[in-house]
Amino acid sequence: MSTAGQVIKCKAAVAWESGKPLSIEEVEVAPPQKNEVRIKILFTSLCHTDVYFWDAKGQNPLFPRILGHEAGGIVESVGEGVTDLKAGDHVLPIFTGECKECAHCLSEESNMCDLLRINTDRGEMIHDGKSRFSINGKPIYHFLGTSTFSEYTVVHVGQVAKINPEAPLDKVCVLSCGMSTGFGATVNVAKPKKGQSVAIFGLGAVGLAAAEGARVSGASRIIGVDLNPSRFEQAKKFGCTEFVNPKDHNKPVQEVIAEMTGGGVDRSVECTGSIQAMISAFECVHDGWGVAVLVGVPNKDDAFKTHPVNLLNERTLKGTFFGNYKPRTDIPAVVEKYMNKELELDKFITHSVPFSEINKAFELMLAGEGLRCMIRMDA
Amino acid sequence: MSTAGQVIKCKAAVAWESGKPLSIEEVEVAPPQKNEVRIKILFTSLCHTDVYFWDAKGQNPLFPRILGHEAGGIVESVGEGVTDLKAGDHVLPIFTGECKECAHCLSEESNMCDLLRINTDRGEMIHDGKSRFSINGKPIYHFLGTSTFSEYTVVHVGQVAKINPEAPLDKVCVLSCGMSTGFGATVNVAKPKKGQSVAIFGLGAVGLAAAEGARVSGASRIIGVDLNPSRFEQAKKFGCTEFVNPKDHNKPVQEVIAEMTGGGVDRSVECTGSIQAMISAFECVHDGWGVAVLVGVPNKDDAFKTHPVNLLNERTLKGTFFGNYKPRTDIPAVVEKYMNKELELDKFITHSVPFSEINKAFELMLAGEGLRCMIRMDA
Repeated sequence: MSTAGQVIKCKAAVAWESGKPLSIEEVEVAPPQKNEVRIKILFTSLCHTDVYFWDAKGQNPLFPRILGHEAGGIVESVGEGVTDLKAGDHVLPIFTGECKECAHCLSEESNMCDLLRINTDRGEMIHDGKSRFSINGKPIYHFLGTSTFSEYTVVHVGQVAKINPEAPLDKVCVLSCGMSTGFGATVNVAKPKKGQSVAIFGLGAVGLAAAEGARVSGASRIIGVDLNPSRFEQAKKFGCTEFVNPKDHNKPVQEVIAEMTGGGVDRSVECTGSIQAMISAFECVHDGWGVAVLVGVPNKDDAFKTHPVNLLNERTLKGTFFGNYKPRTDIPAVVEKYMNKELELDKFITHSVPFSEINKAFELMLAGEGLRCMIRMDA
Repeated sequence: MSTAGQVIKCKAAVAWESGKPLSIEEVEVAPPQKNEVRIKILFTSLCHTDVYFWDAKGQNPLFPRILGHEAGGIVESVGEGVTDLKAGDHVLPIFTGECKECAHCLSEESNMCDLLRINTDRGEMIHDGKSRFSINGKPIYHFLGTSTFSEYTVVHVGQVAKINPEAPLDKVCVLSCGMSTGFGATVNVAKPKKGQSVAIFGLGAVGLAAAEGARVSGASRIIGVDLNPSRFEQAKKFGCTEFVNPKDHNKPVQEVIAEMTGGGVDRSVECTGSIQAMISAFECVHDGWGVAVLVGVPNKDDAFKTHPVNLLNERTLKGTFFGNYKPRTDIPAVVEKYMNKELELDKFITHSVPFSEINKAFELMLAGEGLRCMIRMDA
């Protein structure tokens, strides 16, 4: 029996207040409205951004809320006006969208859609400013337009990438945020040439995805930089050939890297969000041609500071958002890269829990253990 | 009778001490040594950099010195090992070189030659650490390896661009520094696409050359930014379509430009060297795809400061040096652009004086009058 047009009752993990364990509740999920899609989530993984907004330190607290934004699922039904998706399609919901009509979507260079650009403060759907989730008639807020910690969720069609139905959703799920962010930062923005050297600042999941991008690009040296030496062994699997712990040196890490490389690396990718790491990542690239790419999200009051001569000596500084991928146009092709074995994803998934144990995924991340914990919705 | 191998006695304008008028003296010019070329200078123009090192405020004073680095001339003789130039070749001496062997010269992306990169402190030839200029046996220092305020000068072969002998040296002379710097910053680094908008900060000669680059690239809007409104009328000849004087507004100029352009210009080029202008030039480009290019040379203690979110929103910040042109490989083709009428140079040359009146060129520049003053060596 079709559920299209009906309210669906299902389980969701609700964050009732900041920093408290999520609670699995029965929620009502309203049918998708104009330009919306209702998706049955099969797998979702936990990303740091979920934890930031659950913890809500330095963020606007918005509760009760259903978090979650890295996921894979199957379209259950579509709302009015949705023509390029239908029930049964395999999809990845994405935390930022692509309306295909604004100046950014029309530009070849940007993925920062005016209509559907990431909005961490919004808790409702843009169509009518209302939530599609409720418990006993009381609305529960959305998160990033995705709210994937629910068996069913409603997402704007502009935030849904339709992918190859043969792709295993428990693997390509991680492409809906972190892995695409890091991988794209390297292959779309830093663009190392075969044989060049790349420094990766921060060896968490996003940094390792950036390293994977360098490996796939044929970089000759991939220098991992992290304050935590226990991350170095794992990083080798992602192509890192050398390691630098800034704590081991009594000079700035950019000088250490310049000495290791005869003047600097060809490319660097910063994945920590620490302002000092951003400055080091910029200043460690070679003059004449070096390109530094910033991925990590800094604190509100941070200022990037450098001597302008570092720029005049022909270094380039760029930032990126979601690896410069357009969610609907580009992500299906990244899934194909995985299918063609050009890109490895399995090694990012270090843990797995059933949905009922979702709080374990939070505990693992808070303890800094592993990279991605896959949450199985049907288990 | 050939002068090759002989000391040449000729006139040169000698700077005996900082800030004092140059004095036309008879100097002895030694023959070119290994990998050197002796050039008969026919035309030289005055650039701000000459004035900085003549004034020597905040620079290392080095006197007596023969200044000058924008020039055109004819090879008089060549030293040992010089095979790609011969007497009679028309050339532009360039203040920075291209050895064709170092990592920078071998890179497609860099023009910052390790051997011959601009060195403002060096007063001798690199071959033997000696000067080729003397008066009564007392050496006179070189400047930038060019010292074109002399009827004859000796230059390292790596700093000599061989050009089309039909090109008028009294015009293409200005391509040996300022015009190539500004023009190249736009066409080689900012690379505006046809129909895009470009902001130019600073409407001096280099900024107007950057505007000329935007005009040639087919920019739809070229917004000139300058604190001196008297420069606006002239800037129209260089393609500027609109003008903004930051003093006319009580908010930062980047906000004014963002409002004028629906979010920011597509490209900006900073040609003042003011750190505040650099920051504005960066922050005035559109998110998603904007590219800001820094040309102006800042003070030693300046720090470029911006909120990193400006980068993460997919803006790019780049610096450039000599318009990213390789002096020997690329400048001959820029001369051809002038010959093919793709690039206009005549409008940059607003004044002309005989060599005997070279101090008038300094007076004009100090008074902020005109763009380039052509100094005619044979007059």
